[in-house]
Amino acid sequence: MLSIAVDVMSGDNEPREYVTGALHALRADAELHALLVGQPASIEPALADAPASLRERIALVPATQVVAMDESPREAIRRKKDSSMRVAIDLVKEGRAHACVSAGNTGALTATAHFVLKTLPGVERAAIMSAIPSAHGHTHMLDLGANTSATALQLRQFAEMGTIVARDVYGLESPRVGLLNVGEEDIKGHQVVQEAHALLSASGLRYVGFVEGGDIFSGAVDVVVTDGFTGNVALKTMEGLASLIADRLRREFTASLRDRLAGLIARPVLSRVAASLDTRRYNGACMVGLSGIVVKSHGSADRLAFARAISMAALAARRSLTAHIAQALVAQGS
Amino acid sequence: MLSIAVDVMSGDNEPREYVTGALHALRADAELHALLVGQPASIEPALADAPASLRERIALVPATQVVAMDESPREAIRRKKDSSMRVAIDLVKEGRAHACVSAGNTGALTATAHFVLKTLPGVERAAIMSAIPSAHGHTHMLDLGANTSATALQLRQFAEMGTIVARDVYGLESPRVGLLNVGEEDIKGHQVVQEAHALLSASGLRYVGFVEGGDIFSGAVDVVVTDGFTGNVALKTMEGLASLIADRLRREFTASLRDRLAGLIARPVLSRVAASLDTRRYNGACMVGLSGIVVKSHGSADRLAFARAISMAALAARRSLTAHIAQALVAQGS
Repeated sequence: MLSIAVDVMSGDNEPREYVTGALHALRADAELHALLVGQPASIEPALADAPASLRERIALVPATQVVAMDESPREAIRRKKDSSMRVAIDLVKEGRAHACVSAGNTGALTATAHFVLKTLPGVERAAIMSAIPSAHGHTHMLDLGANTSATALQLRQFAEMGTIVARDVYGLESPRVGLLNVGEEDIKGHQVVQEAHALLSASGLRYVGFVEGGDIFSGAVDVVVTDGFTGNVALKTMEGLASLIADRLRREFTASLRDRLAGLIARPVLSRVAASLDTRRYNGACMVGLSGIVVKSHGSADRLAFARAISMAALAARRSLTAHIAQALVAQGS
Repeated sequence: MLSIAVDVMSGDNEPREYVTGALHALRADAELHALLVGQPASIEPALADAPASLRERIALVPATQVVAMDESPREAIRRKKDSSMRVAIDLVKEGRAHACVSAGNTGALTATAHFVLKTLPGVERAAIMSAIPSAHGHTHMLDLGANTSATALQLRQFAEMGTIVARDVYGLESPRVGLLNVGEEDIKGHQVVQEAHALLSASGLRYVGFVEGGDIFSGAVDVVVTDGFTGNVALKTMEGLASLIADRLRREFTASLRDRLAGLIARPVLSRVAASLDTRRYNGACMVGLSGIVVKSHGSADRLAFARAISMAALAARRSLTAHIAQALVAQGS
């Protein structure tokens, strides 16, 4: 049995969408139990049609408040002590859940997670890490926005944690790590990446050096390390471009009757391409470096994407993400 | 008559590719004259088949050296005083060319351009600016990598220069400016973007506030301002993702006989989409803020993309880019 605390109130969608996502996740994973956190009046109607076999693996944990998507991290910590986000994280802290998931605002989630769970010994800051589709599978990238900047030491720690997650959660034998920069030559970049380059070269990790934005997709490395500002901009840039391309395809394949017909014939192929790049399949970014597992779902995640984030939390819990990171960092004396 | 100095030796391709690109540009623009800079032995064979009508608008300017793609900016300035890159920029400085184009390495080009041409009075650093396809036309973005960091004041200057280029070169009446950040709320981001936000809010520009990576494509703003590190990573990320998607489409449309057939039928539509997003059509990034016009072509540009960069240089020269920026900055007392 594996218990995941699910904040069903935070995010761009209605609680019903997230509750339905949780039902999907439960259906796909017979060991999973969900603690749905939020206002019972918002949750219960969405559970009315759930079969008993799922219903018995669900418990409601009431929370009276909701952290708004534009709420400041400070306000969230100070004034929203009974928010669904805070209560879900508290459940992890208290050992009542193995992990938690929220589609709430990144700043508030990061701050609350740091405040409640604290970072592991030796870890300065937790980072948000996610898998991104690439030429030969996927690339693991961090930090995607937990922090707005990073020191050289923090970048080295991100590289260490990224390596552990890629190895112990995703099963890559010896993950290759690259540091995101504006060129591959050793002399490129600002002082922080230069210092981090030196630290990483001496780290004992399988560090291959600087990589550029295109290498996120090229398969040249398994783990791409960057600060949370650059990482978040890169992530949002990808999402924006993918959605622009999808819009253009939709528009052009409906421009005339002939184009519509072509679209109909091409649909199976286009669907395969879309599925292989579908960000929903990659939803669920782990906050790594905390004393407990927190998974951040995309704010606009639909039920399928949200179910994926819950499965991600279950995977991280099963693979003992936190213990692996803690042990590895102790071993390396970070 | 408009003279463009063209560095045909620097870049990932052979000189022949760039010379052919110059011929394309000359064919498309009857007023254009090209000063092809490089080793005559590398250039002349590529001109052998050029018609006299184009040939008479071409002059060769010899340069014995070439700046390597991985050469350090310092070395390029010190030791490559007779490189094609340096000579092309010198031609602008001496008033013999209205603008210059190079596909050479960004660091060396930026450093040499700053060294030879200097920034305009009041401008701390020049920035690299380019048009990027978006939902409703294109978005102008800077800095794409001239600098590895930027101060708040420099970001404000980038916004001012970006506004002038969008208005006076691209004809947008009142360009909306956004500052790239990890969220749209006023409280988001690190200290530099916070300070730049304050400067921009008081600047008299049509500043709409923070934007996220996705807004590069959404059409929400006309000018996106960021530091050269973030901008370069975002640009390379776009290019990498676009190429991943193109590869996936190619692979899936050739997976089986049936898929091949679907691909044949869908090809006209796919070609339209590809053309509308083709980075070659957007090749040619202006270095703005210098006392002369320098256009940076993508290093791997083919003849068509390189021709586009030359046309970009011609457009910037015709619209008196440098004078517009100089006047506007004097007027604003920057």
